[in-house]
Amino acid sequence: MEYTPCEEIESRISKVRDLMEKASLDGAFFHYKIDYFYLSGTMQDSLLYIPIDGKPILFVKREIGRARRESPLENILPFRSLKDIKPYIGPVKRVGFQLDVVPYNDIVKIRDLLGDMELVDVSPMAIEVRKTKSPFEIRIMEKAASIAKKVYQKVPEFLKEGVREIEVGGMLESYAKSLGHEGLLRVRSLNYEAYTWHIVSGRTGSVVSQSDSPMGGFGLSPAFPVGASMKKLKRDEPILVDFGICYHGYQVDQTRMYAIGSMPELFEKAYHVCRDIHYRVLDKAVGGESCNDLFEYSKRLAKDAGYEAYYLGYNPHKVRFLAHGIGLELGELPFVAPRRDYPIEEGMTFAIEPKMVFPKQGACGFENTVLMEKGGYRILTNIDEQIILV
Amino acid sequence: MEYTPCEEIESRISKVRDLMEKASLDGAFFHYKIDYFYLSGTMQDSLLYIPIDGKPILFVKREIGRARRESPLENILPFRSLKDIKPYIGPVKRVGFQLDVVPYNDIVKIRDLLGDMELVDVSPMAIEVRKTKSPFEIRIMEKAASIAKKVYQKVPEFLKEGVREIEVGGMLESYAKSLGHEGLLRVRSLNYEAYTWHIVSGRTGSVVSQSDSPMGGFGLSPAFPVGASMKKLKRDEPILVDFGICYHGYQVDQTRMYAIGSMPELFEKAYHVCRDIHYRVLDKAVGGESCNDLFEYSKRLAKDAGYEAYYLGYNPHKVRFLAHGIGLELGELPFVAPRRDYPIEEGMTFAIEPKMVFPKQGACGFENTVLMEKGGYRILTNIDEQIILV
Repeated sequence: MEYTPCEEIESRISKVRDLMEKASLDGAFFHYKIDYFYLSGTMQDSLLYIPIDGKPILFVKREIGRARRESPLENILPFRSLKDIKPYIGPVKRVGFQLDVVPYNDIVKIRDLLGDMELVDVSPMAIEVRKTKSPFEIRIMEKAASIAKKVYQKVPEFLKEGVREIEVGGMLESYAKSLGHEGLLRVRSLNYEAYTWHIVSGRTGSVVSQSDSPMGGFGLSPAFPVGASMKKLKRDEPILVDFGICYHGYQVDQTRMYAIGSMPELFEKAYHVCRDIHYRVLDKAVGGESCNDLFEYSKRLAKDAGYEAYYLGYNPHKVRFLAHGIGLELGELPFVAPRRDYPIEEGMTFAIEPKMVFPKQGACGFENTVLMEKGGYRILTNIDEQIILV
Repeated sequence: MEYTPCEEIESRISKVRDLMEKASLDGAFFHYKIDYFYLSGTMQDSLLYIPIDGKPILFVKREIGRARRESPLENILPFRSLKDIKPYIGPVKRVGFQLDVVPYNDIVKIRDLLGDMELVDVSPMAIEVRKTKSPFEIRIMEKAASIAKKVYQKVPEFLKEGVREIEVGGMLESYAKSLGHEGLLRVRSLNYEAYTWHIVSGRTGSVVSQSDSPMGGFGLSPAFPVGASMKKLKRDEPILVDFGICYHGYQVDQTRMYAIGSMPELFEKAYHVCRDIHYRVLDKAVGGESCNDLFEYSKRLAKDAGYEAYYLGYNPHKVRFLAHGIGLELGELPFVAPRRDYPIEEGMTFAIEPKMVFPKQGACGFENTVLMEKGGYRILTNIDEQIILV
């Protein structure tokens, strides 16, 4: 088990503070665990307060002993109720809260406790800082990618006629966990869960779900309506495996295609187009083109290859992104999507996933988690890129 | 795959409306999916509006075709942005929102759209209605329990010296999913996730975590600090398996004890005390005693048996509940806990889990999901109650 080094935490806090200062904040509360883990090193049940001057304070409900072992912060204090924190917060006028994720009642309780103040959404600042990964974070993502590689090497063993999508998902998860995969991906959303993954085969690949993904899958019930289903695998149909891996909180995401017997020509051709788009967009990204332009470029490539109607889903269910940043959360900066007028910078990690969905027939796609480096990119998920036939 | 019947949805909405009327609400928005699933039958990405008079409207972002198949509601409309809903909402003064879970920004956006209004927390009303299960819901929970039974019968096969806790968890999950288990339990909380479950062995059973549970486990990293860990199973140590099952969104929760070789006497004795407390509290619950009194009674039983220091954890980490309601969420009404001055009523389902934790030695416990019926109770998780030695 690995803890976040002190200098790592100090550097992160200093970067968030710079943004807080620009926004004229007197301090900020981090109550949502992804961000306070990033800024403190622990996910024990806590509330992190960063004043604009002075030392951050981590108030821990449970369990403070573990929080003190995991976090290099100096001020780690117990708290049972919000009243316990009041003496530690100086007079404040403009205060940051994670307004995009923290429930209304929780925000109001703190505001009522501390008196009248202006609330500012501090989440964009935390997200901004998280978008560039440190060498420490990249090393953890490399470890996640090495688990992913082993898991994908195992896929062919699990693919047999008559086996259900969800059984394949379960076996992959079981094997992945034995290697250190933590079982969940995390999404900054009230309602979205990343579970049971997209193991979709044949026609289920064309089923759209509530998830923001070109293909969704049936899932298991109206209460779990995404991803792998009870459908049995058949011969000669496309099997898409989009299975994210999480190690020490850091995620990598990847997609490969399989078939039992043969891959129908429609999907084989589309797969090569996806792979081509993936690499051509990456090459252009190195040049510093904006994410918006990269997105439009990928659409042109798909159109020129004759796949406009299927690229990133079919109408009216197309999704509006080609790549999403990835790290502690499944969707973070950068997004290769419309209106994102920034380039992909050195140190950013992202999952690029050109996919084609053919109504009532199925889906196909190709995806890697990629690190942008100085003068080039590096594919972290270094997994066999061919269609695998079993 | 099973859909929620129309009369079921109508009855639920009518009950929530009664409570809304008592609270003088003009209408209520349900944005958190557990409650809108309960009230509509679908978990597609939606926003449910229930006016105090007139028909509920389900606004669906994605995917409306599935929402229309799954939900018997008449008014199911597409929406892309909040502006789309405005024409459908009459003049309102007092409006319900799920203020305990919906993010601050989301609430403020709707309030700004619709004009000045008084915000009321409607979550307690939804939770109140959900506490009593219908025959339809009970049938689904029985199915979940039948999956749990099969999964627990499989546990002994997976317990071998040198196998890691997380490997056991993974194999159980994989098997459970093949039977229809949906892989996640759901908790009404910003930060709490129910994952990888409590497979704890020997000393890891005494490790406290951020979770509100007497025992927590190490988990896999500071970013996933709960439940099964990389620790290998040994001979002659207590192995606690607390593995929840979810079917069509409905959960059952249970705990049993295992050992490879022999169970140390300390844990064997404590197990029988747990089982005794479990049954004696259930017998008293049938008499209509309040949950607060049941909790105190269980503490007296533990004390009289000489286990005061270990019952529901050790100081200062004791938890303050013996049982939690269970259904679509892992912690719902009723709670057998201090200050809960209501009885357990007919139709309520709850997980009762007396547990003992011995510092630095391990944990032991016994848990079932139980349905209160007229004049008695019924254990849904009808699983072998003996300690299993392999």
